[in-house]
Amino acid sequence: MFYYQNPAEGLAIREVNRVVEEAFAEHGRGRVQMPPKLYVTFDHGDFRTMPAYIPSLSLAGVKIVNVHPGNPRIGFPTVMALLIILDPGTGIPVAILNATTLTDLRTGAAGGVAAKYLAPSRTVTLGLVGSGRQAAAQLDAIAAEREVTEIKVWSRNEKNAVSFCRKYSSLDCTVAPLEKVCDCDVLVTSTPSREPVIRDDWIREGTHINAIGADAPGKQELDPGIIQRATVFVDDPAQAVHSGEINVPIAKGLFSPERIEGTLGEVVLGRKKRMSRDEITIFDSTGLAIQDLAVAEIAMKSRERVALRFP
Amino acid sequence: MFYYQNPAEGLAIREVNRVVEEAFAEHGRGRVQMPPKLYVTFDHGDFRTMPAYIPSLSLAGVKIVNVHPGNPRIGFPTVMALLIILDPGTGIPVAILNATTLTDLRTGAAGGVAAKYLAPSRTVTLGLVGSGRQAAAQLDAIAAEREVTEIKVWSRNEKNAVSFCRKYSSLDCTVAPLEKVCDCDVLVTSTPSREPVIRDDWIREGTHINAIGADAPGKQELDPGIIQRATVFVDDPAQAVHSGEINVPIAKGLFSPERIEGTLGEVVLGRKKRMSRDEITIFDSTGLAIQDLAVAEIAMKSRERVALRFP
Repeated sequence: MFYYQNPAEGLAIREVNRVVEEAFAEHGRGRVQMPPKLYVTFDHGDFRTMPAYIPSLSLAGVKIVNVHPGNPRIGFPTVMALLIILDPGTGIPVAILNATTLTDLRTGAAGGVAAKYLAPSRTVTLGLVGSGRQAAAQLDAIAAEREVTEIKVWSRNEKNAVSFCRKYSSLDCTVAPLEKVCDCDVLVTSTPSREPVIRDDWIREGTHINAIGADAPGKQELDPGIIQRATVFVDDPAQAVHSGEINVPIAKGLFSPERIEGTLGEVVLGRKKRMSRDEITIFDSTGLAIQDLAVAEIAMKSRERVALRFP
Repeated sequence: MFYYQNPAEGLAIREVNRVVEEAFAEHGRGRVQMPPKLYVTFDHGDFRTMPAYIPSLSLAGVKIVNVHPGNPRIGFPTVMALLIILDPGTGIPVAILNATTLTDLRTGAAGGVAAKYLAPSRTVTLGLVGSGRQAAAQLDAIAAEREVTEIKVWSRNEKNAVSFCRKYSSLDCTVAPLEKVCDCDVLVTSTPSREPVIRDDWIREGTHINAIGADAPGKQELDPGIIQRATVFVDDPAQAVHSGEINVPIAKGLFSPERIEGTLGEVVLGRKKRMSRDEITIFDSTGLAIQDLAVAEIAMKSRERVALRFP
């Protein structure tokens, strides 16, 4: 058994996108096992337990990931993750990965894959609502799939948006008011909001939205009006209904699970797609354990590892 | 973050029994979080993912444990386990424990606690059906709680029963036919059977049974007639109905979840108990993640540990 301290280092975004795309394809084919993630809640956060098995990769495992919004105040990341990999043949644990950065990457990759198939055009303008680690991961992954000509960024704390654009100074990246950010081809929302931050009348026809922030019951970023007039794709129906962007609209009777058009896996397989240039499409991402497994497969090539005695 | 290679070494059985008893008490008080374990199945085995949180111990974590019955043929244990411990305040993983032996101990401890409260007398004769690692763990834990005057052992493979008794040569331990083994005060069943191995007419009034082997859908060791005339206690109702000794009788309409008398936690708290000397009592054990957490707390005193860089 090995512990991988820094397995994200050196991974190529394009390769991450490809293995995550293939995991979604297997999900679309119904060839994975993935019970819906389990939540355990604390006073100041929670943790999620995410087991899965991808037979075609001969890879099984469990991701354990916390969300503690107050952590940055005491010098810890909000989200930290470990990934345990088992050998399907014997059940023996073969690897433990520090999966905090891998989690950013695989969530970004899902957004990249969604943009590849659902963006209205090959060349796109990008709007980022939220400017944290996930906004960067989405930008990296989307830019690996589409030609991004312009990036507009909004953050509740403007300083963060400014510093985000500084990091991407080689691109046309500017801070903008929320309404202007929403006027784009591909919009990424990655805030921890529990109230809609994006108004319905700010979203023009043809926009594709990666709705990333809502990943637990009660969280939402989009006005339900947007969801009502959009074509909604999800990563996994069970998880999306429970904790994705659509969870609050469903709880309020403003959206119905039957209105989900399909999964990203079905989109990757070509079974579902954007039907017109004017359609608004939404990819509702909750994060799947199979994405973690897929990335682990290439991350375990890292040499920065420690051998541990087991059993 | 530390990896504990051999955290079971040096643990005192009595102390293990006490911390497991306290975990059951917290469970009885409704003060733990423990979603029912998730199963992922392989061609030749499965693995279970078991998250939990005990606020009174400020301890949260996940056990990951496989069951691969063919493993011994290729030199691996059937069951292997890892336990990940998180700090509830920040969600950061603080420890990873090799939990294979800890799993034996904590399952044994539940049987010890059940015998402490439900055995018909302080001095008992013990019957063991199955002579594997769990039979030994049950014997050790029960002997720490009750005075065991005589032990009879049966195994499908008689050689195993003989070698078991050789290991316990300081006690009055003998190999016996199945029917004779069942004629005892406390009976432990710890086989992987999917058919009843214990006949109804072999169990006399007053016997207490620790039904340990059935821990997945389709597994059972007792004739349903025994369950019908017994007072049934479980570790956790949701898990027992799904995968405990009662799962098959319930599926066949021979037992009803409403007939569960109570949980071991309620027994520990004195809210439920054996009502008469003649009653047959059953403790249906499926194994709870809180037992693992409770044992982890004392196991993390082990000095045989490796520091790992995280995050």
